[in-house]
Amino acid sequence: MVKGSLSPNRFFSPDPGVRILAAEIYRSVEDQPLLCPHGHVDPRLFSEADGSFGSPADLFIIPDHYVTRMLYSQGIPLEQLGVPRIDGGEIETDHRKVWRLFCQHFHLFHGTPSGIWLTHELNEVFGIHERPGETNADMLYDTISEKLASPGFTPRQLYQRFKIQVLCTTDAATDTLPAHQAIRNSGWQGRILPTFRPDAVIHVDALDWKEQVEKLSAVSRIIVSDYRSFIHALMQRREFFQSMGAVASDHAVINPVTGEITTGEADGIIKRAFKGTVSADDASRFTAHMLMEMARMSVEDGLVMQIHPGALRNHNTLVFNRFGPDRGADIPLRTEFTNNLMPLLNKYGNDTRLSLIVFTLDESAYARELAVLAGHYPALKLGPPWWFHDSLNGMARYFNQVMETAGIYNTAGFNDDTRAFCSIPARHDVWRRASANWLAGLVARHMIDIKDALEMMDAMAIGLAKRAYRL
Amino acid sequence: MVKGSLSPNRFFSPDPGVRILAAEIYRSVEDQPLLCPHGHVDPRLFSEADGSFGSPADLFIIPDHYVTRMLYSQGIPLEQLGVPRIDGGEIETDHRKVWRLFCQHFHLFHGTPSGIWLTHELNEVFGIHERPGETNADMLYDTISEKLASPGFTPRQLYQRFKIQVLCTTDAATDTLPAHQAIRNSGWQGRILPTFRPDAVIHVDALDWKEQVEKLSAVSRIIVSDYRSFIHALMQRREFFQSMGAVASDHAVINPVTGEITTGEADGIIKRAFKGTVSADDASRFTAHMLMEMARMSVEDGLVMQIHPGALRNHNTLVFNRFGPDRGADIPLRTEFTNNLMPLLNKYGNDTRLSLIVFTLDESAYARELAVLAGHYPALKLGPPWWFHDSLNGMARYFNQVMETAGIYNTAGFNDDTRAFCSIPARHDVWRRASANWLAGLVARHMIDIKDALEMMDAMAIGLAKRAYRL
Amino acid sequence: MVKGSLSPNRFFSPDPGVRILAAEIYRSVEDQPLLCPHGHVDPRLFSEADGSFGSPADLFIIPDHYVTRMLYSQGIPLEQLGVPRIDGGEIETDHRKVWRLFCQHFHLFHGTPSGIWLTHELNEVFGIHERPGETNADMLYDTISEKLASPGFTPRQLYQRFKIQVLCTTDAATDTLPAHQAIRNSGWQGRILPTFRPDAVIHVDALDWKEQVEKLSAVSRIIVSDYRSFIHALMQRREFFQSMGAVASDHAVINPVTGEITTGEADGIIKRAFKGTVSADDASRFTAHMLMEMARMSVEDGLVMQIHPGALRNHNTLVFNRFGPDRGADIPLRTEFTNNLMPLLNKYGNDTRLSLIVFTLDESAYARELAVLAGHYPALKLGPPWWFHDSLNGMARYFNQVMETAGIYNTAGFNDDTRAFCSIPARHDVWRRASANWLAGLVARHMIDIKDALEMMDAMAIGLAKRAYRL
Repeated sequence: MVKGSLSPNRFFSPDPGVRILAAEIYRSVEDQPLLCPHGHVDPRLFSEADGSFGSPADLFIIPDHYVTRMLYSQGIPLEQLGVPRIDGGEIETDHRKVWRLFCQHFHLFHGTPSGIWLTHELNEVFGIHERPGETNADMLYDTISEKLASPGFTPRQLYQRFKIQVLCTTDAATDTLPAHQAIRNSGWQGRILPTFRPDAVIHVDALDWKEQVEKLSAVSRIIVSDYRSFIHALMQRREFFQSMGAVASDHAVINPVTGEITTGEADGIIKRAFKGTVSADDASRFTAHMLMEMARMSVEDGLVMQIHPGALRNHNTLVFNRFGPDRGADIPLRTEFTNNLMPLLNKYGNDTRLSLIVFTLDESAYARELAVLAGHYPALKLGPPWWFHDSLNGMARYFNQVMETAGIYNTAGFNDDTRAFCSIPARHDVWRRASANWLAGLVARHMIDIKDALEMMDAMAIGLAKRAYRL
Repeated sequence: MVKGSLSPNRFFSPDPGVRILAAEIYRSVEDQPLLCPHGHVDPRLFSEADGSFGSPADLFIIPDHYVTRMLYSQGIPLEQLGVPRIDGGEIETDHRKVWRLFCQHFHLFHGTPSGIWLTHELNEVFGIHERPGETNADMLYDTISEKLASPGFTPRQLYQRFKIQVLCTTDAATDTLPAHQAIRNSGWQGRILPTFRPDAVIHVDALDWKEQVEKLSAVSRIIVSDYRSFIHALMQRREFFQSMGAVASDHAVINPVTGEITTGEADGIIKRAFKGTVSADDASRFTAHMLMEMARMSVEDGLVMQIHPGALRNHNTLVFNRFGPDRGADIPLRTEFTNNLMPLLNKYGNDTRLSLIVFTLDESAYARELAVLAGHYPALKLGPPWWFHDSLNGMARYFNQVMETAGIYNTAGFNDDTRAFCSIPARHDVWRRASANWLAGLVARHMIDIKDALEMMDAMAIGLAKRAYRL
Repeated sequence: MVKGSLSPNRFFSPDPGVRILAAEIYRSVEDQPLLCPHGHVDPRLFSEADGSFGSPADLFIIPDHYVTRMLYSQGIPLEQLGVPRIDGGEIETDHRKVWRLFCQHFHLFHGTPSGIWLTHELNEVFGIHERPGETNADMLYDTISEKLASPGFTPRQLYQRFKIQVLCTTDAATDTLPAHQAIRNSGWQGRILPTFRPDAVIHVDALDWKEQVEKLSAVSRIIVSDYRSFIHALMQRREFFQSMGAVASDHAVINPVTGEITTGEADGIIKRAFKGTVSADDASRFTAHMLMEMARMSVEDGLVMQIHPGALRNHNTLVFNRFGPDRGADIPLRTEFTNNLMPLLNKYGNDTRLSLIVFTLDESAYARELAVLAGHYPALKLGPPWWFHDSLNGMARYFNQVMETAGIYNTAGFNDDTRAFCSIPARHDVWRRASANWLAGLVARHMIDIKDALEMMDAMAIGLAKRAYRL
């Protein structure tokens, strides 16, 4: 990768002693490959050899809700950013205009992770060493467009250039994984693996639940009519996902409540769901029960189980109605783990066949609950700082609040968790630099020595993720 | 302003590289004027040209609950500090004795914001470069008394000397603003603006609600007898406040619950309030509804809307019964924003005619809820670190936890929020130094360059407050 | 104490200016004696002149749930660590094998407080200057065994060598304190004082409550048959504990709810408890009431009152059933103080005869609730960072979030709170270093001067604990 004008010591402590140590530690993993065990990149990018990222606005702005929500918060309509309206309303279709708007407002990203990632991508991926602004917007648009049209800039080429070893996507339980199949069929060597995310069929109070379950019946060839057939269909899907290379399942819940109900109760809920008479309490108890079931299945089939709780989705109804989900209006909630995870951890947490990775958007639970739980239960690992906390300060807070109690070996290394493929190297680079800087601080304060730090750095860059995700 | 023996680089990082940068950034705004868009200074101080601050104890101790609560916590009775008893009980009236007690215990303020502000005031306002203690208490008392009696030390003179551009007070909806009127009539050029705070008439379960509403009828000349007339009276008061220069309303609530009820329901609650049969649930729903109404009116009349939630007032009944409100026994509560603000943000949060500034005493909501909400909704800005968090560490935590997600442009700059007029320059100085130091850290870690930092510093010192408060 | 190869400046800031100041401040208290006003050391260690710690595994591993839970979290069965099973199941009895397993996994403790304490103990207590590992495990085992068998390594000898001035244990209300009596009778000069912890008789819904109350009747010689006799028996026990030197009581509760019920209600609950028909609500209200009663008694008899809330005990049923309590499966919960403590603080918090020390495992309450409460109520002091927060980062967070608002003089200094006697000097050393480093930061940023820092350091090392615990 061509090195740009980025400072080689960026993000390290200003203290010269720590900085030198951090640089030494970072250099030891700087060129290591990338493991991407959880994220949201579209697998279709890789299904053909000559895949394309589209225009600079397609690549950097329109699909990236980190970018569009910041511009929106400052009063720029999403329509002007070219974000597609699901209601067919008019939007800006001239991507050059969208790009200009973005460049004009680039100062909004000062001091933010998006600012860091975008700068990294421009420098390291596109060799652009100047900051976007009003005056150079057109020139940058042309430069990037030209590169994107050149043969070295297909998704597959960048996958290799980024040294990605494995990239896990996130896929509905009802997905037949045609893109993953196409990749396999193509003979290309990149490892793009699906992840089993059955939320849509588990949340029995969702408006489209019946439709989703019909899909589930169709793809599993098991007619789902009661709880028993529902479970069988899910087991069939897990088996299918594993046959396609999946190593993990993933579960998004508002609250990580876990707890079993009887088969009779579960059956009653499924039946009420079919009739459309399911209650909110039914839905909560069913989700709590299904987390138990998913853990049970993981013990049996070995899929790593991920829980991503605490995001209230689509908080902004106007934005949701116009633009659909994932448009920046997902807002975190306070999240309780000690009581909520107790049933699951009591039943499966002592079993080392289970690898359970829990994430949080509520940092107040790091030191109070999660580090303590992860520092006790053999099955539990704590996922890396997630979403809004996937940032330099978010990582520093995580190291500060988690590591003393959990130890690094009860964490799951790093996930980039992105839809923006080109930001992957930037995100891993931030993690590696933040980790190196944290370790350098431990060395400088005589808590560990440099040999320990290098071992720990290696684990944090690669080893912990490999182990937690059984890659 | 005479510069005292305060270190010119105080509060900056000990790291020499960061310190030099911080000093450079700070110097760029050091002499900028002060905007004070939210606070509790008594406007009567300014209504006459020769206003006076009273004795050194009147200025520094008796009215300052930050000071008296710390002394009280160490077992010093408030009576000995000259704090007036509302029940007529005896108190110390010799202000020299009160001053001595304060000086004897000055060590209690080591490492506290009050210690920093008091030291700043002594040095920069009174030219006193020694620390208060038992031995110099009398000498300091004499020196300060003498200065306070001299012509340069009237509130108006200090307003000019402090370079204050605008000072917003906090005033009841029923206030006829005679002091503000007197200031206007006097022809003095200082801008002392009222802020519309209708809490007393909105909290329908308050003991004196009927009395307050009678006042509201009287001052608005609209007989409040039902919900409709209540709303009309409030609109009349907002119009009056705006005619007196008000730019904002302010709302103190225990929880920032928002949500509309029907006019019929609101009418029922008002009627029960008149009969004295209102329930706690009535009061909650009415407050939630009135926050919606206030937002609606702000969209129409352009008053900036502030919400200050989460303080449980008058926790200590003994202190409250003897000394009345605002005596240091207000204790924060955990505060939820994501669900609570949803109705208001859904209805008005996408409308850029609204400028809504939300504060918190619950820092756990910074990164989890508030930064994310402010980083999405165009109408919402996050207020500066408030009350107990208006401190060097409080600011550092705010920068750390808020800025990466919200970006600085979704924040509202600084408020001093003080009753202690002479502490205003000290408070702004701490904010400017803390901001400069934070920005210097970003520069030193190569996240922004010095040009960005200077622009951001200017915004944080002046620009953001000016924009958020539409000054 | 022989100085080992530990860095003399360990744990201080890497910044050279701060480090030099921190070292100067630390040196001023480095050799001060240790006050240990709260902990869980077994008093029987000291009841005979030639007491023994057993094997290296007995000393360092088997009873230390900080060590065993970390090894367990990484899949090592507690049986292999020699932890006794209460169900009589087989365990490893060869302590050399247990030691080897520990040494093999020593890297798990990198960056953790246990790692710091263990390293300190090896270096400073045993003169071992190499890190445990697979290759030196046997050699270390032999060296430590030999030392433990030598005359200088009895608990009493180490008590003197550690310069402990007073060591408070934690004892059930029904304990007749035979070990404490034996210590007194032996004429040994060490001060080992009991602490009154009546949890077992106060939690009326505990399975063994009747049994505990029968014990209480037996030891107090007051037949407990109703609320009145229950209270009398507790008063008798407090008197007995005081006659044995106790200075404090201690109360572990899930939530620090306080609030009085009538004597009639209390009597009804006691009677239902005897019949085994007590409800969860009865138990909560009774505990809330008894905290009030304990405060009332403290006002009268002068015992310092400690509250340790927020730990959900024995979260892991499998571990609890096999190994009993205190095996690392106690997990913190979110904890509310503002509302919960209001009744107690309103009734007794203004009374300086009470010294109430409150701890928390929920750091989100530090700045929001506890620092504010401690900075107001004369009776209240905030205890040091507890349990999982008794760590370098935990202390730094405490200083950061508590001290600006509470001031150091509303805190209770340091507690080691350990079962591991040999870790006591290490724990105090970490606190003193962390405190010195924090104070050095204040000096370096010109918030206090070095003279203030030395005074504050003295208070933090000794004075605050002495005052809060009335030692």
